[in-house]
Amino acid sequence: MNSKKAKNNSIENFLNNNSNKEVVVVQGLGFVGSVMSIVCANALKGDFAVIGVELPNNNGRKIIKSLNNGKFPLSAEDPKIDEFYNRSIIKGNFFATNDTNAYKFADIIIVDVNLDVNKVNDKFGKLDKYNVDISPFKKAIKVIGQNCKEDALILVETTVPPGSCEKIVKPIILGELKKRKLSLDKIKIGHSYERVMPGPDYIDSIQNFYRVYSGINSKSCKAVKSFLKKIIRTDQYPLTKLGSTTASEMAKVLENSYRAMNISFMVEWSRYAEEAGVNLYEVIDSIRLRPTHSNLMYPGVGVGGYCLTKDALLASWSREILLDSKRTLKQSESAISINDQMPRFAFQFIKSHYPNLNTLKILLLGISYRGDVGDTRYSPVERLYNYLSKECKSITCHDPYVSYWEEKSLKIEKNIKPLFKKDYGMIIISAGHSIYNRNKTIKMINEMKPLIIIDTIGLLKNDQINLLNVKHTLKILGRGDI
Amino acid sequence: MNSKKAKNNSIENFLNNNSNKEVVVVQGLGFVGSVMSIVCANALKGDFAVIGVELPNNNGRKIIKSLNNGKFPLSAEDPKIDEFYNRSIIKGNFFATNDTNAYKFADIIIVDVNLDVNKVNDKFGKLDKYNVDISPFKKAIKVIGQNCKEDALILVETTVPPGSCEKIVKPIILGELKKRKLSLDKIKIGHSYERVMPGPDYIDSIQNFYRVYSGINSKSCKAVKSFLKKIIRTDQYPLTKLGSTTASEMAKVLENSYRAMNISFMVEWSRYAEEAGVNLYEVIDSIRLRPTHSNLMYPGVGVGGYCLTKDALLASWSREILLDSKRTLKQSESAISINDQMPRFAFQFIKSHYPNLNTLKILLLGISYRGDVGDTRYSPVERLYNYLSKECKSITCHDPYVSYWEEKSLKIEKNIKPLFKKDYGMIIISAGHSIYNRNKTIKMINEMKPLIIIDTIGLLKNDQINLLNVKHTLKILGRGDI
Repeated sequence: MNSKKAKNNSIENFLNNNSNKEVVVVQGLGFVGSVMSIVCANALKGDFAVIGVELPNNNGRKIIKSLNNGKFPLSAEDPKIDEFYNRSIIKGNFFATNDTNAYKFADIIIVDVNLDVNKVNDKFGKLDKYNVDISPFKKAIKVIGQNCKEDALILVETTVPPGSCEKIVKPIILGELKKRKLSLDKIKIGHSYERVMPGPDYIDSIQNFYRVYSGINSKSCKAVKSFLKKIIRTDQYPLTKLGSTTASEMAKVLENSYRAMNISFMVEWSRYAEEAGVNLYEVIDSIRLRPTHSNLMYPGVGVGGYCLTKDALLASWSREILLDSKRTLKQSESAISINDQMPRFAFQFIKSHYPNLNTLKILLLGISYRGDVGDTRYSPVERLYNYLSKECKSITCHDPYVSYWEEKSLKIEKNIKPLFKKDYGMIIISAGHSIYNRNKTIKMINEMKPLIIIDTIGLLKNDQINLLNVKHTLKILGRGDI
Repeated sequence: MNSKKAKNNSIENFLNNNSNKEVVVVQGLGFVGSVMSIVCANALKGDFAVIGVELPNNNGRKIIKSLNNGKFPLSAEDPKIDEFYNRSIIKGNFFATNDTNAYKFADIIIVDVNLDVNKVNDKFGKLDKYNVDISPFKKAIKVIGQNCKEDALILVETTVPPGSCEKIVKPIILGELKKRKLSLDKIKIGHSYERVMPGPDYIDSIQNFYRVYSGINSKSCKAVKSFLKKIIRTDQYPLTKLGSTTASEMAKVLENSYRAMNISFMVEWSRYAEEAGVNLYEVIDSIRLRPTHSNLMYPGVGVGGYCLTKDALLASWSREILLDSKRTLKQSESAISINDQMPRFAFQFIKSHYPNLNTLKILLLGISYRGDVGDTRYSPVERLYNYLSKECKSITCHDPYVSYWEEKSLKIEKNIKPLFKKDYGMIIISAGHSIYNRNKTIKMINEMKPLIIIDTIGLLKNDQINLLNVKHTLKILGRGDI
């Protein structure tokens, strides 16, 4: 096995086996960095030696071990993930490590580390306060500065508070280079954000999609462009160069704030539609026919994932810290706060229709934050589960992509078959996994004979609902009892 | 002239000349009703006799006189307007009147009257309070009930507070029919909203676009559908039937609230980009490449027109009045409030760069609320003008579509040539008329020799700016001095 061979290799051995290749080091092997690594290892033009660097903690070691042992650490519906990963094993041009010496050999360093926001929500889910936890990011940049070549390209992909490349990354890197008595004129620093969409188009969302890029000077811009052209199909998806790193950092945060805000906008209308007895799904479908309104969001159980739950806060924070101004992006902040309350609204809706929740055995279908992805970070289902578990003694969770729910320390049913014979009183569809939208699932649910089905995300089509042999089905937010 | 003939006709004569045709009466001949009338007079299938009814007030009489004398009362860039209108004159199947007897002959009555919101803004433009002025609408419906045939189709197109057809229109009509001892079972009431977009595609935005419709019962739905299929190209733009009139009323209000909210979202980011020195236009262009973000709005001088400045308030009001609930659509309400402040932000931006406004002669290019439309209703330029006029002694306004500014009682320069020799210190582009975006306008501006150009809406492209021979050009919101 190539993987076995890789496992026993040092960085030096790996590079000897990949001589004459440009060296890309990806810092952070999470949901972006791990996939970015195999995209680089399968570059469209040229050939890279790719080293992924993770932290020497438990999670980091697990990821490194998995990657160097022939198993990609993420589970998603995209068949290209395995295809790309396996090809990199066969080629032997991808290696994972926690040895920071890796940066010494890098021609290109891609920063894909996390940058977290600490949010404090009140008991209703409202956002009370928040702070950006910038120190791990600073530390990550410092490690690069302590090790990198003086003429490396440092490409930040992490979603950062606008202004970070100019006011955080650049001073840290230059400071470290100065300590090391290296040239300060050769380093290249750029920003280009991914638009990764975990799920069935995971790889394509990197390789076959538009990119924005920028650099701290024209030399940096040129280097970023030249690199991106090797890994992205830029003939079909042309690159856009922005005037400053702050501009492209802002673009990323604006994109995600916009998304969060569009969802939060719909939350209020969901409540309204419920009260007025209007089927909001139907209304939205009719409006989405307009090209200018085609991205109107559907109501649902909540917003989750690593980005949309916090990115809108980075901008306001940046105003305060980097611009010496005030946190004035109130609409974007309130979008996050409203979205954080969605699971409570979903729970209240269920409770208002079925006050005796304590008498029911409940099956939750789907715990990850998004359909066809095994990612439970900031999943809204967590809050829904918390509300439900205060009332119900028996809640079983199923998710085809998750066997253990880290955030709740819960074992999750990955297979659906063992659930068949249980007498569930209520089934709640809480994630949009495509398995739940198949006709055989309808058949399965009918075999389970629950009394009530709650579809919190409008996954079931009307004709599927008609096939259900249960007492009640309820689509949250206006669909009403049928 | 056919128009002359029409002018002297009574309703009876008009109908005699149009015997065996279904009679459509359009109530309200404003920006929607007048165009809807000529679309009906040029039906795709069948042939209608169309009577437009206006109120017997000054404005109504002016519109009627104009329509019956061969001059369409609106000025817009769409050549189809004249084409449709002239064809209706030649066919002799369109007639305007303030005689409410017209309703007696109607097979179909289309309600296109205004429904106003009285807004009170504070001195900063913030929305202090508002109320829906529902009584003129009720009165209009009552007149229909007092005159209509018992089996007419009443199709409400007016943007109304959701619930209006069920809780206002239906009871009033049935009440009047009862008084007249007519059957209460035959009347048909429906709701279908237009998506009229004044400008170069005025007619197409009615005839060649998607429509949502609904009725108070299946008979009404059927009648609405049958009518719409005669005037709209439904083979290319299929109709969507919604479950209730409240649902389609809500769809309309939701559509426009969404638009208003998307603009207001950008307002905060505009301020942010200004402070951070980021060119927000460029950032938005880069984001709009994403299909899911293609309708991200550009910043600008403000939101105007009859719809986007108030529709988002109708829903909250309806919750209070028709649902006996509270005005809870806070985000939509705040969108209106934020947008109403945009002209002030624009003024502050100009003022911060050019504190000595009082020393300058200013030329405002464009006073209507939207490009290539002669509509000054709720134009944001009005507020901008108010701020400017407190500081500047000399402001000249130009607009190719407006000769008299009703709201300000001001004569407007329609021709651009007489302005050539004036020594303007500052030219402010305040409406997106395409004439301002032509290279010959750049030439013209250079001949005027202003010191400063302010582009409040990002109309000028970079290469056009480069051709300008002025001391400063400034794109509001982040473009900065060049």
